[in-house]
Amino acid sequence: MSEGRVTLADIEAARERIADIVHRTPLDTSRTFAELSGAASVGLKLENVQRTGSFKIRGAYNKMAQLSDAEREAGVISSSAGNHAQGVALAGDLLDIDTTIVVPEVTPAAKIEATRGYGAAVVVEGDIYERSYEYALERAADTGETFVHPFDDEAIVAGQGTIGLELLEQYPDIDTVLVAIGGGGLISGIGTVLKAAEKDIRVIGVQPEGAAHAKPSLEADEIRELSDIDTVAEGIADTRMLETTFDIAREVVDDVVSVSDREIAAAVTLLAERAKTVAEGAGAAPLAAALSDEAELNLEGEHVVVVVSGGNVNLTEHAELTRTGLHELERYAEARLALEGWPTSVGEVAETVEAEGAELDVLERARRTSVDEPNRVPVTVGLEGSGPEHLEGVLEGLDSLEGVSVLERSLE
Amino acid sequence: MSEGRVTLADIEAARERIADIVHRTPLDTSRTFAELSGAASVGLKLENVQRTGSFKIRGAYNKMAQLSDAEREAGVISSSAGNHAQGVALAGDLLDIDTTIVVPEVTPAAKIEATRGYGAAVVVEGDIYERSYEYALERAADTGETFVHPFDDEAIVAGQGTIGLELLEQYPDIDTVLVAIGGGGLISGIGTVLKAAEKDIRVIGVQPEGAAHAKPSLEADEIRELSDIDTVAEGIADTRMLETTFDIAREVVDDVVSVSDREIAAAVTLLAERAKTVAEGAGAAPLAAALSDEAELNLEGEHVVVVVSGGNVNLTEHAELTRTGLHELERYAEARLALEGWPTSVGEVAETVEAEGAELDVLERARRTSVDEPNRVPVTVGLEGSGPEHLEGVLEGLDSLEGVSVLERSLE
Repeated sequence: MSEGRVTLADIEAARERIADIVHRTPLDTSRTFAELSGAASVGLKLENVQRTGSFKIRGAYNKMAQLSDAEREAGVISSSAGNHAQGVALAGDLLDIDTTIVVPEVTPAAKIEATRGYGAAVVVEGDIYERSYEYALERAADTGETFVHPFDDEAIVAGQGTIGLELLEQYPDIDTVLVAIGGGGLISGIGTVLKAAEKDIRVIGVQPEGAAHAKPSLEADEIRELSDIDTVAEGIADTRMLETTFDIAREVVDDVVSVSDREIAAAVTLLAERAKTVAEGAGAAPLAAALSDEAELNLEGEHVVVVVSGGNVNLTEHAELTRTGLHELERYAEARLALEGWPTSVGEVAETVEAEGAELDVLERARRTSVDEPNRVPVTVGLEGSGPEHLEGVLEGLDSLEGVSVLERSLE
Repeated sequence: MSEGRVTLADIEAARERIADIVHRTPLDTSRTFAELSGAASVGLKLENVQRTGSFKIRGAYNKMAQLSDAEREAGVISSSAGNHAQGVALAGDLLDIDTTIVVPEVTPAAKIEATRGYGAAVVVEGDIYERSYEYALERAADTGETFVHPFDDEAIVAGQGTIGLELLEQYPDIDTVLVAIGGGGLISGIGTVLKAAEKDIRVIGVQPEGAAHAKPSLEADEIRELSDIDTVAEGIADTRMLETTFDIAREVVDDVVSVSDREIAAAVTLLAERAKTVAEGAGAAPLAAALSDEAELNLEGEHVVVVVSGGNVNLTEHAELTRTGLHELERYAEARLALEGWPTSVGEVAETVEAEGAELDVLERARRTSVDEPNRVPVTVGLEGSGPEHLEGVLEGLDSLEGVSVLERSLE
């Protein structure tokens, strides 16, 4: 491999620079995920427990620690409503550099507070992210502040690459590593290290179906930009790579696969349930790929690493994701019942669900719709069970009760 | 301290026995929880990522590995609907001992499947846990199976005590350790080790207010049993200690504090949000104590360990707990609005919430109640914000919209 924009030496230097600041995050091996994927082993690289809740502090600190005294004095500006903002803010706090983060108007107060909590000034400017980005660039040109890009920067890539160094130490037998691609900073850094190791490690990028620009770009060998993106994985909801990351990704990425939002939700669910860890959508995407039949990754017998890149998800969103995930895993069913003998017949419904060993998560007297018999009361139930057969059995049990019929259900 | 029922040597022997089986779980230090509690540092001992999702495998394996060939041949029986069941089942699988777990009729199918998944036979017997327990004892007397008690057994206590050995290595400067008490097996084991170290480490037990038997028992110096228990922390919903654990706890426990279910829910929430870890209620109770003003633990300047004992919580329950926790942390509000100009006025409501940086988690055209004006449409909203002042501001913003009034709200 020819000497690229970012070298192994750059990444080793980055590691020195960030060593006292950044956690060496755990690599947890999971029996469950090995079984589910057919791999010999699956290691979860838990960057969701990194400081600021994602890997972004690695690149931000590596970049900002290399600024000259004059640049430090002039301060740093960036635009982000997400993990990069917190990385820049914390790096600024630690390096005593004033930081300003420009966010779009719709940014939740909680995210603004988190960024302010790390010591950054937050400027709300622009109706969408692109406007915030442009404003930050303009202001940087005016004020002399350094604009720190979330990925299109060698020093950022080198910082993210330090994860690759840790992986080689923590898991020397890696066959395949799965890394999410948003703008491509993370995979460029990790891939540079793993390819330099000359151990035939496969580096696979993972994107959501609704923001899948990397595969067409690598196939066309030029950057392709999406006009429209739509995914639950906000952390990797980018429209394109840029020059730095594209140049590196061409060299170090073996393949890119995409996963659906529903698969991502199922992966968030399984990470919470089996690994007891809270991941954001972007952080769960690589596991979704490992568990997806359609991705055709042929992981059988391999030692696989899945990079769980971040865990910054609002808890009500996390709850929504895990609910969606339970549906996707066919462990949750909704049904509309028609009941005679309301309200006492509700008791029978509840007893039947309990006797069948399912959880009655929701029970609601519903508004009447056209499918309802006028002499029966419509009730919606939400049921959690151990799988589709179990839930089918529970619904059959309900349907067989006298005076109860199951009108509609979410399972096929 | 006099030589007790379980000695340091017993626990060191247990550690040898379980070394190849059980994870040495991480001790994560948390800046956030140090800040929130006033402690110099807070370390989370993450037994929720232990095999089977809780510490129980330590005691179960230590006990079952010491059975004679004849006892192994006759098999093991226990009663539990929770973590102990999975510990016994996995230990049996690993030691090639047939295991039977007796569970009450109401046990969710998912828990039965999890226990079967580790290779145990599951017998459903008894309408409440006490009946299952009695049945298991009777059957053991009949069949010659060994009954493995969840806590009233020296070998079980010694196994749980291995956590104490790990703590002394991982965190040699501990001043105080907080451990949940159900039957007392965990704190007896850990406390034995920490007191033997003669380092003046405080060992504090934590119980839910609805199952707080340990403090009265230790104060009276005799086992007190509760007739009634009521707590969200199922894993420590016990009515009493028994002889083994009470005898040890008298010697090694410095104090016991209790926490409310709402405080436990807030701790579950903060563990997910800040430490990205999924804890069950029992696992979060010690953190709740560390963060509780009422517990009066005086942790200022101390190095504190919080044992997160387990993470086996159904995800819909976890979502419920975190929602409750957000309420307790005053970051969630529900309100009932009265709207003129339905449905178009809903747009203004949504825009106002977004402009104020809050999340509109729920919006529902509600059923009419007596507080509603007949010419206005009742709408309920669920709002997530960064704190009570923020949410108050959002509600004031809604109330000041023309044609919108806020009728009721969950914040004071």
